[in-house]
Amino acid sequence: MDLHDLTRSLHVRNESKIVMLVADGLGGLPLEPGGKTELETAKTPNLDRLAQTGVLGSSIPVVPGISPGSGPGHLALFGYDPLKFQIGRGALEATGIGIELGPRDVAARGNFCTLASDGTISDRRAGRIPTEESGPLAIRLRDARIDGVELTVEPVKEHRFVVVFRGEGLGGDVDDTDPQATGVPPLAPRARDSQSQRTAQVAAEFVRQAEELLQGEAKANGLTLRGFSPRPDLASYEEVYGLRAAAIAVYPMYKGLARLVGMEIVGQPQTLDEQIGLMRESWNSHDFFFLHFKYTDSTGEDGNFDEKVRRIEELDAAIPTILDLQPTVLIVTGDHSTPSALKSHSWHPVPTLLHAAHCRPDPCREFSETECLRGGLGQFEAKYLMSLALANAGRLGKFGA
Amino acid sequence: MDLHDLTRSLHVRNESKIVMLVADGLGGLPLEPGGKTELETAKTPNLDRLAQTGVLGSSIPVVPGISPGSGPGHLALFGYDPLKFQIGRGALEATGIGIELGPRDVAARGNFCTLASDGTISDRRAGRIPTEESGPLAIRLRDARIDGVELTVEPVKEHRFVVVFRGEGLGGDVDDTDPQATGVPPLAPRARDSQSQRTAQVAAEFVRQAEELLQGEAKANGLTLRGFSPRPDLASYEEVYGLRAAAIAVYPMYKGLARLVGMEIVGQPQTLDEQIGLMRESWNSHDFFFLHFKYTDSTGEDGNFDEKVRRIEELDAAIPTILDLQPTVLIVTGDHSTPSALKSHSWHPVPTLLHAAHCRPDPCREFSETECLRGGLGQFEAKYLMSLALANAGRLGKFGA
Repeated sequence: MDLHDLTRSLHVRNESKIVMLVADGLGGLPLEPGGKTELETAKTPNLDRLAQTGVLGSSIPVVPGISPGSGPGHLALFGYDPLKFQIGRGALEATGIGIELGPRDVAARGNFCTLASDGTISDRRAGRIPTEESGPLAIRLRDARIDGVELTVEPVKEHRFVVVFRGEGLGGDVDDTDPQATGVPPLAPRARDSQSQRTAQVAAEFVRQAEELLQGEAKANGLTLRGFSPRPDLASYEEVYGLRAAAIAVYPMYKGLARLVGMEIVGQPQTLDEQIGLMRESWNSHDFFFLHFKYTDSTGEDGNFDEKVRRIEELDAAIPTILDLQPTVLIVTGDHSTPSALKSHSWHPVPTLLHAAHCRPDPCREFSETECLRGGLGQFEAKYLMSLALANAGRLGKFGA
Repeated sequence: MDLHDLTRSLHVRNESKIVMLVADGLGGLPLEPGGKTELETAKTPNLDRLAQTGVLGSSIPVVPGISPGSGPGHLALFGYDPLKFQIGRGALEATGIGIELGPRDVAARGNFCTLASDGTISDRRAGRIPTEESGPLAIRLRDARIDGVELTVEPVKEHRFVVVFRGEGLGGDVDDTDPQATGVPPLAPRARDSQSQRTAQVAAEFVRQAEELLQGEAKANGLTLRGFSPRPDLASYEEVYGLRAAAIAVYPMYKGLARLVGMEIVGQPQTLDEQIGLMRESWNSHDFFFLHFKYTDSTGEDGNFDEKVRRIEELDAAIPTILDLQPTVLIVTGDHSTPSALKSHSWHPVPTLLHAAHCRPDPCREFSETECLRGGLGQFEAKYLMSLALANAGRLGKFGA
């Protein structure tokens, strides 16, 4: 019996509202020994007040020591064991640029490359072709025609694009065609199981036509395909939790991840204020609200400690407007840490706050990495956050008699 | 390799004595923000002294957010993963009223219902018939006769009773006959696997005879059967831990749960003093003593904060008598929390105390939910308590060379 077997069989419905505010990459590090983290430096009177009446803890996105990407980081927050449910690279890339994958789709990441006259790869990234040049080439590839297959090609950035094949009988298990070396030709797409034979044939035909369409290009006259993957098979929030969930995010990646677990994508907000406004508008039609705040991550990635502090303060300033809606359960957390000191996602536990009427209080006085160490949630795997949310919302019955 | 593979291969025998004192539903909540829990309110000088030299922690009965019933709560304390080992509802109900299930038994919960003249259910609970009326009817059902099957019928409460079929070839996988609706007849018992075909036939014959025996009753002239289940297959304490275990409990449910893991049921105590007396008498013949104290749960269920406080103080007063026996390891914990504020089992971690010569001390000064947060056992899944007990009793060898 796994976590979703539990929530599937125990969940009940009621009038409660759960808000999960995800500050991407929230956790940080001090810049020097004895210093404070970004969250500890930021003035966060509203979050600190919640910390005093709520319960804190440190969430571990995957397992200790593992730095997750956005995919596993969010799957864990959504309650999907990130080691059990994996999103293929092609599917994640497609999701990230806003392509809505269907059950008959196989997605792959495409790389433009430079082929020498003998057909071998002379540059695996097509001379790091700029997006302005590669974008129109990706769009040109839409002219390929394959019987019984609907083709989607979208530019991503520089030498990268995404291709989605839609059709009957397309398995997702096909080897990469990138040989990871120059001086050799791209590999032919090769199926790893019988259900993917047709996918390999379709991909080979796509590559053949694409090379014709790219003929004469100096840099990008060839391509490789990687990370073939179908739409991941994730049970919906409605089914496993009995929640009508709304995702209110600015960036396509997070909308896409939320869509994969059956959340409804609400609006096209550009700011946190707009996100909260949309939450207010959909308050009665939904039970669960996933609000995504990107800038704690992007500033961390930039190594900009002060700007990350400022973004955390911006988040804190939005808390009263959220509280005005009187959510039954309010969670503030991140999908992973992005310390400015590392300029990257990291493995450090993520400060997490849960506020609800029946959470057991702990001695914490402010929302910070250090205080979270003595929080009542302890250190816990992020995948358990949803069962905690449901319990605190009165939405879980008793397990066993 | 699972937990029991470990303990099975590593356990050794010695003269140590382990006492596990389970205060049912021990964990609590403050009644108001900033307040204290029941355990924090209670004056517990003896438990506090143990906390200073022992080690504390917060145990999670199942996984975060899950409120367990008595079955999974105790299985976890006994070291049986409650998600792996599940006790069917019929078996638990039979266990709870003191029926000792054997390997050829299938138990089911029975509900009296009212049937209209056309055979459809007009009241699924037989007009909430009082126990004084339903008890004799349940006993009347013992007159049913089925070839090759030994029948046990026991009244429970109001419309509920338990039936156990004992015989060869009775599988436990039969669908409920309760249609969960009125205006339709009870369902016929239907086997979910071939080994349960005979059980379904036997159950159908029992229902047929029971309806004859109930003919003419105004309220309870029909019945439905639910939660068919065999005796759960649990390895014994002797086998997995090398412990001769004694269960000293007042209520049948806890004796029954202990019997399922091979503990010997000692005496018929009515008070905690009598329980401790029985423990003293069986001190030399056993290695492990499970003492169950019900009233921290029942007062919590009643929402009686003050009475729960008083019951905790009663428990505390018994500690010196237990210590007089000089147990090698003394554990005080609960199977779950039952906060008076919620009047129900809850998901909150359970304050846990382990006292032994070689536990590593922590800074805790008293036994309370808040102090347990900084305890040396941290937050841990309850299923690990037995391996901790064995280790502290010097009963576990080294894993690997």
